[in-house]
Amino acid sequence: MKAMKNIDLQKLNQDIEHFVSEREWDQFHSVKNLSMALSVESSELLEIFQWMSEEDSNHIKNNSQVMGKIEDEVADIFVYLLRIISKTDIDLEQVVRNKMRKNAQKYPVEKSRGNSKKYNEL
Amino acid sequence: MKAMKNIDLQKLNQDIEHFVSEREWDQFHSVKNLSMALSVESSELLEIFQWMSEEDSNHIKNNSQVMGKIEDEVADIFVYLLRIISKTDIDLEQVVRNKMRKNAQKYPVEKSRGNSKKYNEL
Amino acid sequence: MKAMKNIDLQKLNQDIEHFVSEREWDQFHSVKNLSMALSVESSELLEIFQWMSEEDSNHIKNNSQVMGKIEDEVADIFVYLLRIISKTDIDLEQVVRNKMRKNAQKYPVEKSRGNSKKYNEL
Amino acid sequence: MKAMKNIDLQKLNQDIEHFVSEREWDQFHSVKNLSMALSVESSELLEIFQWMSEEDSNHIKNNSQVMGKIEDEVADIFVYLLRIISKTDIDLEQVVRNKMRKNAQKYPVEKSRGNSKKYNEL
Repeated sequence: MKAMKNIDLQKLNQDIEHFVSEREWDQFHSVKNLSMALSVESSELLEIFQWMSEEDSNHIKNNSQVMGKIEDEVADIFVYLLRIISKTDIDLEQVVRNKMRKNAQKYPVEKSRGNSKKYNEL
Repeated sequence: MKAMKNIDLQKLNQDIEHFVSEREWDQFHSVKNLSMALSVESSELLEIFQWMSEEDSNHIKNNSQVMGKIEDEVADIFVYLLRIISKTDIDLEQVVRNKMRKNAQKYPVEKSRGNSKKYNEL
Repeated sequence: MKAMKNIDLQKLNQDIEHFVSEREWDQFHSVKNLSMALSVESSELLEIFQWMSEEDSNHIKNNSQVMGKIEDEVADIFVYLLRIISKTDIDLEQVVRNKMRKNAQKYPVEKSRGNSKKYNEL
Repeated sequence: MKAMKNIDLQKLNQDIEHFVSEREWDQFHSVKNLSMALSVESSELLEIFQWMSEEDSNHIKNNSQVMGKIEDEVADIFVYLLRIISKTDIDLEQVVRNKMRKNAQKYPVEKSRGNSKKYNEL
Protein backbone atom coordinates (compact mmCIF):
# COMPACT_ATOMS: atom_id res chain seq x y z
CA MET A 1 0.00 0.00 0.00
CA LYS A 2 1.38 3.38 -0.98
CA ALA A 3 1.26 6.39 1.33
CA MET A 4 -1.83 8.45 0.68
CA LYS A 5 -1.23 11.70 -1.20
CA ASN A 6 -2.44 14.92 0.32
CA ILE A 7 -4.90 17.11 -1.55
CA ASP A 8 -5.40 20.84 -1.80
CA LEU A 9 -9.01 20.69 -0.67
CA GLN A 10 -9.58 24.42 -0.79
CA LYS A 11 -8.43 24.72 -4.41
CA LEU A 12 -10.29 21.60 -5.46
CA ASN A 13 -13.50 22.86 -3.90
CA GLN A 14 -13.12 26.23 -5.61
CA ASP A 15 -12.74 24.51 -8.98
CA ILE A 16 -15.83 22.38 -8.35
CA GLU A 17 -17.82 25.47 -7.37
CA HIS A 18 -16.68 27.22 -10.53
CA PHE A 19 -17.76 24.19 -12.61
CA VAL A 20 -21.21 24.20 -10.98
CA SER A 21 -21.65 27.94 -11.16
CA GLU A 22 -20.71 28.16 -14.88
CA ARG A 23 -23.53 25.68 -15.59
CA GLU A 24 -25.97 27.40 -13.20
CA TRP A 25 -26.50 24.09 -11.45
CA ASP A 26 -26.57 25.47 -7.95
CA GLN A 27 -30.36 25.78 -8.19
CA PHE A 28 -30.56 21.96 -8.22
CA HIS A 29 -28.04 21.52 -5.40
CA SER A 30 -30.22 21.71 -2.33
CA VAL A 31 -28.62 19.79 0.52
CA LYS A 32 -31.49 17.30 0.25
CA ASN A 33 -30.83 16.67 -3.44
CA LEU A 34 -27.07 16.44 -2.85
CA SER A 35 -27.66 13.76 -0.21
CA MET A 36 -29.64 11.83 -2.85
CA ALA A 37 -26.90 12.22 -5.45
CA LEU A 38 -24.23 11.09 -2.95
CA SER A 39 -26.28 8.00 -2.14
CA VAL A 40 -26.85 7.24 -5.83
CA GLU A 41 -23.12 7.44 -6.57
CA SER A 42 -22.30 5.22 -3.57
CA SER A 43 -24.69 2.64 -5.00
CA GLU A 44 -22.98 2.83 -8.38
CA LEU A 45 -19.77 1.88 -6.59
CA LEU A 46 -21.65 -0.88 -4.74
CA GLU A 47 -22.97 -2.23 -8.04
CA ILE A 48 -19.44 -3.02 -9.19
CA PHE A 49 -19.05 -5.47 -6.30
CA GLN A 50 -22.55 -6.97 -6.10
CA TRP A 51 -21.72 -10.32 -7.72
CA MET A 52 -17.97 -10.28 -6.92
CA SER A 53 -16.45 -12.39 -4.15
CA GLU A 54 -14.79 -10.59 -1.25
CA GLU A 55 -11.54 -12.25 -2.27
CA ASP A 56 -11.73 -10.91 -5.82
CA SER A 57 -12.63 -7.44 -4.52
CA ASN A 58 -9.41 -7.46 -2.52
CA HIS A 59 -7.35 -7.90 -5.69
CA ILE A 60 -9.29 -5.42 -7.75
CA LYS A 61 -6.48 -2.89 -7.93
CA ASN A 62 -4.77 -5.19 -10.44
CA ASN A 63 -7.73 -5.00 -12.81
CA SER A 64 -7.23 -1.73 -14.66
CA GLN A 65 -10.54 -1.87 -16.51
CA VAL A 66 -12.63 -2.17 -13.35
CA MET A 67 -10.34 0.31 -11.55
CA GLY A 68 -11.29 2.93 -14.14
CA LYS A 69 -14.94 2.56 -13.15
CA ILE A 70 -14.12 2.54 -9.43
CA GLU A 71 -12.08 5.72 -9.80
CA ASP A 72 -14.94 7.49 -11.55
CA GLU A 73 -17.42 6.51 -8.84
CA VAL A 74 -15.01 7.47 -6.03
CA ALA A 75 -14.59 10.86 -7.71
CA ASP A 76 -18.36 11.38 -7.98
CA ILE A 77 -18.86 10.41 -4.33
CA PHE A 78 -16.16 12.79 -3.14
CA VAL A 79 -17.43 15.68 -5.27
CA TYR A 80 -20.95 15.38 -3.82
CA LEU A 81 -19.52 15.00 -0.32
CA LEU A 82 -17.57 18.23 -0.84
CA ARG A 83 -20.71 19.98 -2.10
CA ILE A 84 -22.54 19.03 1.11
CA ILE A 85 -19.61 20.01 3.32
CA SER A 86 -19.27 23.31 1.54
CA LYS A 87 -22.96 24.16 1.96
CA THR A 88 -23.05 23.23 5.63
CA ASP A 89 -19.65 24.72 6.64
CA ILE A 90 -18.42 21.36 7.91
CA ASP A 91 -14.74 21.08 8.83
CA LEU A 92 -14.06 17.63 7.39
CA GLU A 93 -10.96 16.76 9.41
CA GLN A 94 -12.54 17.92 12.65
CA VAL A 95 -15.74 15.89 12.23
CA VAL A 96 -13.71 12.78 11.43
CA ARG A 97 -11.53 13.36 14.52
CA ASN A 98 -14.65 13.84 16.67
CA LYS A 99 -16.27 10.69 15.30
CA MET A 100 -13.10 8.67 15.89
CA ARG A 101 -13.11 9.77 19.52
CA LYS A 102 -16.73 8.67 19.90
CA ASN A 103 -16.00 5.37 18.19
CA ALA A 104 -13.00 4.76 20.43
CA GLN A 105 -15.40 4.92 23.39
CA LYS A 106 -18.15 2.87 21.77
CA TYR A 107 -15.65 0.26 20.62
CA PRO A 108 -13.02 -0.26 23.34
CA VAL A 109 -10.10 -2.27 21.99
CA GLU A 110 -10.53 -5.16 24.42
CA LYS A 111 -14.23 -5.74 23.72
CA SER A 112 -14.20 -5.20 20.00
CA ARG A 113 -11.00 -6.97 18.95
CA GLY A 114 -11.72 -9.27 16.02
CA ASN A 115 -15.43 -8.64 16.45
CA SER A 116 -17.69 -7.03 13.86
CA LYS A 117 -20.70 -6.56 16.16
CA LYS A 118 -22.32 -3.17 16.60
CA TYR A 119 -21.46 -1.38 19.85
CA ASN A 120 -24.96 -1.92 21.22
CA GLU A 121 -24.58 -5.68 20.76
CA LEU A 122 -21.07 -6.01 22.20
CA MET B 1 -19.83 30.19 3.03
CA LYS B 2 -16.47 29.88 4.69
CA ALA B 3 -13.34 28.78 2.83
CA MET B 4 -12.85 25.05 3.12
CA LYS B 5 -10.08 23.97 5.48
CA ASN B 6 -7.36 21.73 4.17
CA ILE B 7 -6.76 18.35 5.77
CA ASP B 8 -3.65 16.30 6.39
CA LEU B 9 -4.98 13.25 4.56
CA GLN B 10 -1.87 11.15 5.05
CA LYS B 11 -1.87 11.58 8.83
CA LEU B 12 -5.64 11.11 9.07
CA ASN B 13 -5.45 7.89 7.07
CA GLN B 14 -2.63 6.58 9.25
CA ASP B 15 -4.69 7.23 12.36
CA ILE B 16 -7.68 5.44 10.86
CA GLU B 17 -5.53 2.47 9.90
CA HIS B 18 -4.15 2.35 13.43
CA PHE B 19 -7.69 2.39 14.84
CA VAL B 20 -8.71 -0.49 12.58
CA SER B 21 -5.56 -2.50 13.15
CA GLU B 22 -5.76 -2.24 16.98
CA ARG B 23 -9.25 -3.80 16.77
CA GLU B 24 -8.19 -6.41 14.19
CA TRP B 25 -11.01 -5.26 11.95
CA ASP B 26 -9.09 -5.46 8.71
CA GLN B 27 -10.35 -9.02 8.23
CA PHE B 28 -13.86 -7.57 7.72
CA HIS B 29 -12.70 -4.76 5.44
CA SER B 30 -12.77 -6.42 2.04
CA VAL B 31 -13.30 -3.78 -0.65
CA LYS B 32 -16.71 -5.36 -1.29
CA ASN B 33 -17.74 -4.97 2.35
CA LEU B 34 -16.36 -1.43 2.49
CA SER B 35 -18.47 -0.48 -0.53
CA MET B 36 -21.51 -1.78 1.40
CA ALA B 37 -20.58 0.19 4.51
CA LEU B 38 -20.06 3.37 2.48
CA SER B 39 -23.46 2.94 0.87
CA VAL B 40 -25.10 2.28 4.25
CA GLU B 41 -23.60 5.45 5.75
CA SER B 42 -24.66 7.49 2.72
CA SER B 43 -28.21 6.27 3.29
CA GLU B 44 -28.05 7.29 6.93
CA LEU B 45 -27.28 10.80 5.71
CA LEU B 46 -30.12 10.52 3.19
CA GLU B 47 -32.51 9.48 5.96
CA ILE B 48 -32.05 12.84 7.69
CA PHE B 49 -33.51 14.59 4.65
CA GLN B 50 -36.20 12.12 3.54
CA TRP B 51 -39.20 14.08 4.86
CA MET B 52 -37.53 17.52 4.84
CA SER B 53 -38.27 20.13 2.18
CA GLU B 54 -35.42 21.25 -0.07
CA GLU B 55 -35.84 24.73 1.36
CA ASP B 56 -35.41 23.52 4.94
CA SER B 57 -32.39 21.42 3.94
CA ASN B 58 -30.74 24.58 2.65
CA HIS B 59 -30.95 26.20 6.08
CA ILE B 60 -29.91 23.14 8.01
CA LYS B 61 -26.57 24.59 9.08
CA ASN B 62 -28.46 26.77 11.55
CA ASN B 63 -29.93 23.72 13.29
CA SER B 64 -27.17 22.54 15.60
CA GLN B 65 -28.97 19.39 16.72
CA VAL B 66 -29.43 18.06 13.20
CA MET B 67 -25.94 19.29 12.23
CA GLY B 68 -24.49 16.99 14.90
CA LYS B 69 -26.07 14.01 13.14
CA ILE B 70 -25.01 15.23 9.70
CA GLU B 71 -21.42 15.67 10.87
CA ASP B 72 -21.32 12.12 12.23
CA GLU B 73 -22.63 10.67 8.97
CA VAL B 74 -20.26 12.78 6.85
CA ALA B 75 -17.39 11.50 9.00
CA ASP B 76 -18.47 7.87 8.57
CA ILE B 77 -18.81 8.30 4.81
CA PHE B 78 -15.38 9.87 4.50
CA VAL B 79 -13.71 7.23 6.68
CA TYR B 80 -15.08 4.39 4.52
CA LEU B 81 -14.15 6.28 1.36
CA LEU B 82 -10.58 6.59 2.67
CA ARG B 83 -10.51 2.86 3.51
CA ILE B 84 -11.45 2.05 -0.10
CA ILE B 85 -8.97 4.54 -1.53
CA SER B 86 -6.24 3.22 0.68
CA LYS B 87 -6.85 -0.40 -0.35
CA THR B 88 -6.97 0.39 -4.05
CA ASP B 89 -4.11 2.93 -4.17
CA ILE B 90 -6.37 5.62 -5.59
CA ASP B 91 -4.99 9.16 -5.78
CA LEU B 92 -8.11 11.06 -4.69
CA GLU B 93 -7.27 14.45 -6.14
CA GLN B 94 -6.19 12.96 -9.45
CA VAL B 95 -9.36 10.91 -9.95
CA VAL B 96 -11.50 13.95 -9.17
CA ARG B 97 -9.52 16.05 -11.66
CA ASN B 98 -9.88 13.31 -14.30
CA LYS B 99 -13.62 13.02 -13.70
CA MET B 100 -14.07 16.79 -13.90
CA ARG B 101 -12.36 16.80 -17.29
CA LYS B 102 -14.71 14.06 -18.53
CA ASN B 103 -17.71 15.91 -17.13
CA ALA B 104 -16.62 19.14 -18.79
CA GLN B 105 -16.84 17.31 -22.13
CA LYS B 106 -20.09 15.50 -21.38
CA TYR B 107 -21.67 18.71 -20.08
CA PRO B 108 -20.53 21.63 -22.26
CA VAL B 109 -21.46 24.94 -20.63
CA GLU B 110 -23.72 26.09 -23.46
CA LYS B 111 -25.85 22.93 -23.59
CA SER B 112 -26.12 22.25 -19.90
CA ARG B 113 -26.62 25.72 -18.47
CA GLY B 114 -29.56 25.69 -16.07
CA ASN B 115 -30.38 22.14 -17.15
CA SER B 116 -30.35 19.08 -14.88
CA LYS B 117 -30.69 16.52 -17.67
CA LYS B 118 -28.20 13.67 -17.97
CA TYR B 119 -25.61 14.10 -20.71
CA ASN B 120 -27.21 11.35 -22.82
CA GLU B 121 -30.51 13.23 -22.79
CA LEU B 122 -29.13 16.71 -23.54
CA MET C 1 -55.99 6.40 -7.98
CA LYS C 2 -57.06 3.04 -9.31
CA ALA C 3 -57.61 0.01 -7.08
CA MET C 4 -54.43 -2.05 -6.85
CA LYS C 5 -54.48 -5.30 -8.83
CA ASN C 6 -53.75 -8.51 -7.04
CA ILE C 7 -50.85 -10.69 -8.15
CA ASP C 8 -50.31 -14.42 -8.24
CA LEU C 9 -47.15 -14.29 -6.15
CA GLN C 10 -46.57 -18.01 -6.12
CA LYS C 11 -46.67 -18.31 -9.90
CA LEU C 12 -44.58 -15.17 -10.39
CA ASN C 13 -41.94 -16.44 -8.00
CA GLN C 14 -41.81 -19.81 -9.76
CA ASP C 15 -41.25 -18.08 -13.08
CA ILE C 16 -38.46 -15.96 -11.61
CA GLU C 17 -36.81 -19.04 -10.12
CA HIS C 18 -37.03 -20.77 -13.48
CA PHE C 19 -35.41 -17.74 -15.16
CA VAL C 20 -32.56 -17.77 -12.64
CA SER C 21 -32.08 -21.51 -12.71
CA GLU C 22 -31.93 -21.71 -16.54
CA ARG C 23 -29.05 -19.23 -16.41
CA GLU C 24 -27.35 -20.96 -13.44
CA TRP C 25 -27.35 -17.64 -11.61
CA ASP C 26 -28.26 -19.04 -8.23
CA GLN C 27 -24.55 -19.36 -7.40
CA PHE C 28 -24.36 -15.52 -7.36
CA HIS C 29 -27.56 -15.10 -5.37
CA SER C 30 -26.33 -15.31 -1.81
CA VAL C 31 -28.66 -13.38 0.49
CA LYS C 32 -25.81 -10.90 1.05
CA ASN C 33 -25.44 -10.28 -2.70
CA LEU C 34 -29.20 -10.03 -3.18
CA SER C 35 -29.37 -7.35 -0.47
CA MET C 36 -26.74 -5.42 -2.46
CA ALA C 37 -28.66 -5.81 -5.71
CA LEU C 38 -31.90 -4.68 -4.06
CA SER C 39 -30.16 -1.60 -2.69
CA VAL C 40 -28.59 -0.84 -6.08
CA GLU C 41 -31.96 -1.03 -7.84
CA SER C 42 -33.58 1.17 -5.18
CA SER C 43 -30.90 3.75 -5.88
CA GLU C 44 -31.59 3.58 -9.60
CA LEU C 45 -35.18 4.53 -8.78
CA LEU C 46 -33.89 7.28 -6.48
CA GLU C 47 -31.70 8.65 -9.27
CA ILE C 48 -34.77 9.43 -11.37
CA PHE C 49 -35.95 11.88 -8.70
CA GLN C 50 -32.66 13.38 -7.52
CA TRP C 51 -33.01 16.72 -9.30
CA MET C 52 -36.81 16.68 -9.59
CA SER C 53 -39.04 18.79 -7.35
CA GLU C 54 -41.46 16.99 -5.03
CA GLU C 55 -44.29 18.67 -6.92
CA ASP C 56 -43.11 17.31 -10.27
CA SER C 57 -42.61 13.84 -8.77
CA ASN C 58 -46.26 13.86 -7.75
CA HIS C 59 -47.36 14.32 -11.38
CA ILE C 60 -44.91 11.83 -12.82
CA LYS C 61 -47.57 9.30 -13.78
CA ASN C 62 -48.52 11.62 -16.66
CA ASN C 63 -45.01 11.42 -18.11
CA SER C 64 -44.98 8.15 -20.03
CA GLN C 65 -41.28 8.29 -20.89
CA VAL C 66 -40.16 8.59 -17.27
CA MET C 67 -42.86 6.11 -16.18
CA GLY C 68 -41.22 3.48 -18.40
CA LYS C 69 -38.00 3.88 -16.43
CA ILE C 70 -39.82 3.87 -13.09
CA GLU C 71 -41.67 0.68 -14.02
CA ASP C 72 -38.43 -1.08 -14.90
CA GLU C 73 -36.81 -0.11 -11.61
CA VAL C 74 -39.91 -1.07 -9.58
CA ALA C 75 -39.84 -4.46 -11.32
CA ASP C 76 -36.14 -4.98 -10.53
CA ILE C 77 -36.67 -4.01 -6.89
CA PHE C 78 -39.60 -6.39 -6.51
CA VAL C 79 -37.78 -9.28 -8.19
CA TYR C 80 -34.82 -8.98 -5.82
CA LEU C 81 -37.16 -8.60 -2.85
CA LEU C 82 -38.89 -11.84 -3.90
CA ARG C 83 -35.51 -13.58 -4.24
CA ILE C 84 -34.66 -12.63 -0.65
CA ILE C 85 -38.10 -13.61 0.65
CA SER C 86 -37.92 -16.92 -1.16
CA LYS C 87 -34.49 -17.76 0.28
CA THR C 88 -35.43 -16.84 3.84
CA ASP C 89 -38.97 -18.33 3.85
CA ILE C 90 -40.51 -14.97 4.73
CA ASP C 91 -44.31 -14.69 4.58
CA LEU C 92 -44.56 -11.23 3.01
CA GLU C 93 -48.10 -10.37 4.08
CA GLN C 94 -47.50 -11.55 7.63
CA VAL C 95 -44.31 -9.52 8.14
CA VAL C 96 -46.03 -6.40 6.80
CA ARG C 97 -48.99 -6.98 9.17
CA ASN C 98 -46.58 -7.46 12.09
CA LYS C 99 -44.65 -4.32 11.23
CA MET C 100 -47.85 -2.30 10.92
CA ARG C 101 -48.87 -3.40 14.41
CA LYS C 102 -45.48 -2.29 15.79
CA ASN C 103 -45.72 1.01 13.94
CA ALA C 104 -49.24 1.60 15.25
CA GLN C 105 -47.77 1.45 18.77
CA LYS C 106 -44.67 3.50 17.99
CA TYR C 107 -46.75 6.12 16.19
CA PRO C 108 -50.03 6.63 18.07
CA VAL C 109 -52.46 8.65 15.96
CA GLU C 110 -52.73 11.55 18.42
CA LYS C 111 -48.98 12.12 18.79
CA SER C 112 -47.97 11.58 15.21
CA ARG C 113 -50.75 13.34 13.31
CA GLY C 114 -49.26 15.65 10.69
CA ASN C 115 -45.80 15.04 12.15
CA SER C 116 -42.91 13.41 10.29
CA LYS C 117 -40.67 12.98 13.35
CA LYS C 118 -39.23 9.58 14.23
CA TYR C 119 -40.95 7.77 17.11
CA ASN C 120 -37.96 8.32 19.40
CA GLU C 121 -38.20 12.07 18.83
CA LEU C 122 -41.99 12.41 19.27
CA MET D 1 -37.78 -23.75 0.42
CA LYS D 2 -41.49 -23.45 1.08
CA ALA D 3 -43.97 -22.38 -1.59
CA MET D 4 -44.52 -18.64 -1.45
CA LYS D 5 -47.85 -17.58 0.05
CA ASN D 6 -50.08 -15.32 -1.97
CA ILE D 7 -51.12 -11.94 -0.59
CA ASP D 8 -54.28 -9.90 -0.86
CA LEU D 9 -52.48 -6.86 -2.23
CA GLN D 10 -55.61 -4.75 -2.64
CA LYS D 11 -56.67 -5.19 0.99
CA LEU D 12 -53.12 -4.73 2.28
CA ASN D 13 -52.74 -1.51 0.32
CA GLN D 14 -56.07 -0.19 1.62
CA ASP D 15 -54.95 -0.85 5.19
CA ILE D 16 -51.66 0.95 4.59
CA GLU D 17 -53.46 3.92 3.08
CA HIS D 18 -55.79 4.03 6.07
CA PHE D 19 -52.76 3.98 8.42
CA VAL D 20 -51.15 6.88 6.53
CA SER D 21 -54.33 8.88 6.22
CA GLU D 22 -55.21 8.62 9.93
CA ARG D 23 -51.82 10.18 10.70
CA GLU D 24 -52.12 12.79 7.93
CA TRP D 25 -48.78 11.65 6.58
CA ASP D 26 -49.71 11.85 2.93
CA GLN D 27 -48.38 15.41 2.82
CA PHE D 28 -44.84 13.97 3.32
CA HIS D 29 -45.33 11.16 0.80
CA SER D 30 -44.32 12.82 -2.45
CA VAL D 31 -43.07 10.19 -4.89
CA LYS D 32 -39.61 11.76 -4.55
CA ASN D 33 -39.64 11.37 -0.76
CA LEU D 34 -40.99 7.82 -1.00
CA SER D 35 -38.13 6.88 -3.32
CA MET D 36 -35.75 8.17 -0.63
CA ALA D 37 -37.51 6.20 2.11
CA LEU D 38 -37.44 3.02 0.00
CA SER D 39 -33.72 3.46 -0.59
CA VAL D 40 -33.08 4.11 3.12
CA GLU D 41 -34.94 0.94 4.13
CA SER D 42 -33.08 -1.11 1.51
CA SER D 43 -29.84 0.12 3.05
CA GLU D 44 -31.01 -0.91 6.50
CA LEU D 45 -31.40 -4.41 5.12
CA LEU D 46 -27.98 -4.13 3.49
CA GLU D 47 -26.44 -3.10 6.81
CA ILE D 48 -27.37 -6.46 8.34
CA PHE D 49 -25.11 -8.20 5.83
CA GLN D 50 -22.23 -5.73 5.54
CA TRP D 51 -19.73 -7.69 7.62
CA MET D 52 -21.31 -11.13 7.13
CA SER D 53 -19.85 -13.74 4.78
CA GLU D 54 -21.97 -14.85 1.81
CA GLU D 55 -21.97 -18.34 3.31
CA ASP D 56 -23.38 -17.13 6.63
CA SER D 57 -25.98 -15.02 4.83
CA ASN D 58 -27.21 -18.18 3.11
CA HIS D 59 -27.96 -19.81 6.48
CA ILE D 60 -29.51 -16.75 8.03
CA LYS D 61 -33.02 -18.19 8.13
CA ASN D 62 -31.89 -20.39 11.04
CA ASN D 63 -30.96 -17.33 13.10
CA SER D 64 -34.26 -16.17 14.56
CA GLN D 65 -32.86 -13.01 16.14
CA VAL D 66 -31.43 -11.68 12.89
CA MET D 67 -34.50 -12.90 10.98
CA GLY D 68 -36.65 -10.62 13.13
CA LYS D 69 -34.64 -7.64 11.91
CA ILE D 70 -34.70 -8.84 8.30
CA GLU D 71 -38.46 -9.29 8.42
CA ASP D 72 -38.94 -5.74 9.70
CA GLU D 73 -36.77 -4.29 6.94
CA VAL D 74 -38.45 -6.38 4.24
CA ALA D 75 -41.81 -5.12 5.51
CA ASP D 76 -40.66 -1.48 5.40
CA ILE D 77 -39.29 -1.90 1.88
CA PHE D 78 -42.49 -3.47 0.62
CA VAL D 79 -44.70 -0.84 2.26
CA TYR D 80 -42.79 2.00 0.57
CA LEU D 81 -42.79 0.12 -2.73
CA LEU D 82 -46.58 -0.20 -2.47
CA ARG D 83 -46.89 3.52 -1.68
CA ILE D 84 -44.98 4.36 -4.88
CA ILE D 85 -46.96 1.86 -6.95
CA SER D 86 -50.21 3.19 -5.60
CA LYS D 87 -49.33 6.80 -6.40
CA THR D 88 -48.17 6.01 -9.92
CA ASP D 89 -50.89 3.48 -10.84
CA ILE D 90 -48.32 0.78 -11.57
CA ASP D 91 -49.60 -2.76 -12.15
CA LEU D 92 -46.90 -4.65 -10.23
CA GLU D 93 -47.30 -8.05 -11.87
CA GLN D 94 -47.42 -6.55 -15.35
CA VAL D 95 -44.24 -4.48 -14.95
CA VAL D 96 -42.39 -7.53 -13.59
CA ARG D 97 -43.61 -9.62 -16.56
CA ASN D 98 -42.52 -6.88 -18.97
CA LYS D 99 -39.09 -6.60 -17.34
CA MET D 100 -38.61 -10.36 -17.42
CA ARG D 101 -39.30 -10.35 -21.16
CA LYS D 102 -36.71 -7.61 -21.68
CA ASN D 103 -34.20 -9.45 -19.51
CA ALA D 104 -34.79 -12.69 -21.41
CA GLN D 105 -33.65 -10.84 -24.55
CA LYS D 106 -30.74 -9.03 -22.90
CA TYR D 107 -29.57 -12.23 -21.24
CA PRO D 108 -30.04 -15.15 -23.66
CA VAL D 109 -29.60 -18.47 -21.85
CA GLU D 110 -26.63 -19.58 -23.92
CA LYS D 111 -24.58 -16.43 -23.44
CA SER D 112 -25.36 -15.77 -19.83
CA ARG D 113 -25.26 -19.24 -18.33
CA GLY D 114 -23.11 -19.25 -15.19
CA ASN D 115 -22.01 -15.70 -15.99
CA SER D 116 -22.70 -12.65 -13.81
CA LYS D 117 -21.62 -10.05 -16.38
CA LYS D 118 -23.92 -7.21 -17.37
CA TYR D 119 -25.65 -7.62 -20.73
CA ASN D 120 -23.54 -4.88 -22.30
CA GLU D 121 -20.37 -6.76 -21.34
CA LEU D 122 -21.47 -10.24 -22.47
